[in-house]
Amino acid sequence: MGSIDTSDGDAYANSAVAPFKPLDPDEFRKQAHRMVDFIADYYKNIENYPVLSQVEPGYLRTQLSQTAPYLPEPFENILQDIQKDIIPGMTNWLSPNFFAFFPATVSSAAFLGEMLCTGFNSVGFNWLASPAATELEMVVMDWLANMLKLPKSFMFSGTGGGVLQGTTSEAILCTIIAARDRAFEKIGVENIGKLVVYASDQTHSFFVKTCKLAGIFPCNIRIIPTTADDNFSMSPDALRKQIEADVEDGLVPLFICATVGTTSTTAIDPVSELADVANDFNVWIHVDAAYAGSACICPEFRQYLDGIERVDSLSLSPHKWLLCYLDCCCLWVKKTDLLVKALATNPEYLRNKRSEFDSVVDYKDWQIGTGKRFRALRLWLVMRCYRVANLQSHIRSDVQMAKMFEGFVKSDPRFEMIVPRAFSLVCFRLNPSGGSNEADLELLNKKLLDRVNSTGRTYMTHTKAGEVYLLRFAVGATLTEDRHVYAAWELIKQCADAVLKENVLD
Amino acid sequence: MGSIDTSDGDAYANSAVAPFKPLDPDEFRKQAHRMVDFIADYYKNIENYPVLSQVEPGYLRTQLSQTAPYLPEPFENILQDIQKDIIPGMTNWLSPNFFAFFPATVSSAAFLGEMLCTGFNSVGFNWLASPAATELEMVVMDWLANMLKLPKSFMFSGTGGGVLQGTTSEAILCTIIAARDRAFEKIGVENIGKLVVYASDQTHSFFVKTCKLAGIFPCNIRIIPTTADDNFSMSPDALRKQIEADVEDGLVPLFICATVGTTSTTAIDPVSELADVANDFNVWIHVDAAYAGSACICPEFRQYLDGIERVDSLSLSPHKWLLCYLDCCCLWVKKTDLLVKALATNPEYLRNKRSEFDSVVDYKDWQIGTGKRFRALRLWLVMRCYRVANLQSHIRSDVQMAKMFEGFVKSDPRFEMIVPRAFSLVCFRLNPSGGSNEADLELLNKKLLDRVNSTGRTYMTHTKAGEVYLLRFAVGATLTEDRHVYAAWELIKQCADAVLKENVLD
Repeated sequence: MGSIDTSDGDAYANSAVAPFKPLDPDEFRKQAHRMVDFIADYYKNIENYPVLSQVEPGYLRTQLSQTAPYLPEPFENILQDIQKDIIPGMTNWLSPNFFAFFPATVSSAAFLGEMLCTGFNSVGFNWLASPAATELEMVVMDWLANMLKLPKSFMFSGTGGGVLQGTTSEAILCTIIAARDRAFEKIGVENIGKLVVYASDQTHSFFVKTCKLAGIFPCNIRIIPTTADDNFSMSPDALRKQIEADVEDGLVPLFICATVGTTSTTAIDPVSELADVANDFNVWIHVDAAYAGSACICPEFRQYLDGIERVDSLSLSPHKWLLCYLDCCCLWVKKTDLLVKALATNPEYLRNKRSEFDSVVDYKDWQIGTGKRFRALRLWLVMRCYRVANLQSHIRSDVQMAKMFEGFVKSDPRFEMIVPRAFSLVCFRLNPSGGSNEADLELLNKKLLDRVNSTGRTYMTHTKAGEVYLLRFAVGATLTEDRHVYAAWELIKQCADAVLKENVLD
Repeated sequence: MGSIDTSDGDAYANSAVAPFKPLDPDEFRKQAHRMVDFIADYYKNIENYPVLSQVEPGYLRTQLSQTAPYLPEPFENILQDIQKDIIPGMTNWLSPNFFAFFPATVSSAAFLGEMLCTGFNSVGFNWLASPAATELEMVVMDWLANMLKLPKSFMFSGTGGGVLQGTTSEAILCTIIAARDRAFEKIGVENIGKLVVYASDQTHSFFVKTCKLAGIFPCNIRIIPTTADDNFSMSPDALRKQIEADVEDGLVPLFICATVGTTSTTAIDPVSELADVANDFNVWIHVDAAYAGSACICPEFRQYLDGIERVDSLSLSPHKWLLCYLDCCCLWVKKTDLLVKALATNPEYLRNKRSEFDSVVDYKDWQIGTGKRFRALRLWLVMRCYRVANLQSHIRSDVQMAKMFEGFVKSDPRFEMIVPRAFSLVCFRLNPSGGSNEADLELLNKKLLDRVNSTGRTYMTHTKAGEVYLLRFAVGATLTEDRHVYAAWELIKQCADAVLKENVLD
């Protein structure tokens, strides 16, 4: 029946003869080597592809057959199809000309770690099912906590601990559930309608979704407004007033989500002051530092985590800015017992002496699902291969390039910065006559963005902050160098020329 | 500062010179080739490792330093450490002697797909962010639906659709939320305490956890008891009576989880009759076929999905029995609009013309998190490289080996089968004198299990069904051949001899 067929011969004719061996080590070796070359070539040529895919909706669905092929296909055919059908439909996140969203950073070390994770295919739902996966995850979570100078209360070597999750949404869902179930012990599940959660209008959209998943009533999700004057950071005073009002109304404040580096503009909520408010009312406070948290391994950025010792939980995604490939989100919690209490299962078929008598960590009780991949290998290889100094240099290099771009923007009077740059994101817009008609400016900048992105030579995105439509230039794709930032700026200027010319002609 | 260091020289001395390039294509190529060989060698030698890791808790944490290394390390050192520190702590899920839980199956094709998924690092939260990832996922979900002969109401080419998730827990959480939010439209969120969900006492433990995550009151989670006489399948009559009683009490039946192939004993809930009950009361019914669903690509097993056209959603995990590596769970739903309505977010920074005007699929609205990996590549490569006939032969070969083991059990009067074998799991126990003292038999079989697993030569697990402690022998690790099943049985018999001898001496 043949395993992966590598010949051009009649696969079907041979198929009755050989037994089907889906994991023949020799064949595995040969094909995986071929794939390494394919991916390395992709990286080598990546600048030749449009950053933002230029295909139309339905491009692939209409191209492929509606049912799986009946005959096995030569592997080389499939590689050709990937080149022909898949790559044109890729928005190439790893292109050095990708400045959209937040870049998802990568590295050889993380790739190797991921290969190994896949290779072992260990399912580490409890300690016994994979002691190495469990213990290495504990080790790397402590290592990274150390690099971030987190207090011992977040470490296994102290009184807390950490876990690797897929996404921030999952991480925050777990902490909301831990906080919620602690509250239920006092007020009973029947009072779920009294639980109130807090975030700012700049908090990532998943927060509201996650709260709803957890059964928090939509009417009890408080969105604290921010202002441009405060650089869109959450006001501790406004938060305190809202909580006081809710307590006054007989409601139960449950959970605050603070953000260090919001998705829109990398606004920074004041962790320390917000923690004071939270602590005063015994409310669980979580810090979402998905993007900017990684920068806090550099002393010059660590200040943004000041006060973290008074926070209940912290999440940070090394797949964003710590070279780790998707998906890898770190969650640290102080009261790990609350997490485990809320998320533990204990079916007979998973019971074992280690879990019962050795008080080992069973990671299934720290996450939503049961199954768990050996994600720690990625982070471990990154930390071992690159060490702290290289990782700091990588952060600083991105920030330096963003500073350079900021300089370009400031040097051209047709453009303006919208919020101060804090990390490696520059928020700016075209505003040639210093106008203040937001609708006109939005239209103008939309035109500019469309024109830039439709070239395929650069990809950036937009957002709105306080009703201002702005362009986001996020530096940090792993292969980006000064020359790419420079070229992007030249392109933006050219497109601005064209757009302004069109506007005059209108 | 050096990238991955490959020399034995003074890495630190060189570190100030070269810029840090975490993704140099040439270095990537070299190191990834090295890792391919490492993994292929691991597969080649896997029989030499104990299946169940023999380490003690804390083995690794005490071995590794408490903080990340200051100096970058030669890659070869790290590979040596993986061999020395990590592999001994692995419970080797891919060993051909792994018969525990349900095996997690793999293949060269899926490995290649996963390499590519990692390599591209595409973040397909919406169509525009990765058209290829979105459309290929739609294509493979339809392909697999076709292989399973699902009705068009579950396909994009019909009126439904599918999505790849990480785990069944996530998939079921999404469907419960869709059902819950539909109910809220009628009864209001303030009546969350009236919503009732149903499963059997054999349903996976994540079900209760998932319902609690969604805010379902624990007192409203109905567990329908099963019996050995019914082979532990859920009784439609018992379900109907429970629902009627709940309606009578003014409660709102919300969601039924039926299982095709339970985790304990691969019991099969009668989908068609349960769907009738669900449809009569307009309750959302989900079929969890995580393990056994894959078998339904074979005509002789497809009957277990009869009635699926009257079901609301179905999940199945190709990482279990369809050679796909972790993590890969397929979820199909009929009313995709309900899913999207419950899970959609629409932040400004993700808005784009495609999502607004082209009614494309944005997969972030089909799942818990925002970020999404290009998982479809794995399933696509498996289906293209192996085609239907090979995949069917893989399922049948596992079932055949399980039948062989069943024959061994039945041929030895000291052993007994506990439930009839339906797929590739054999549930049996040692009961040399046909006794019925459950406590004694549990002790005896625990001793046998411990003895077998402590050899490291075979790994199997246990469960309880109807208070009966039983041993689970799950055939299906990808590298398992007849000879491994035979050797495992010989080992079990030897261990039984020893345990029975000890018992006599006691």
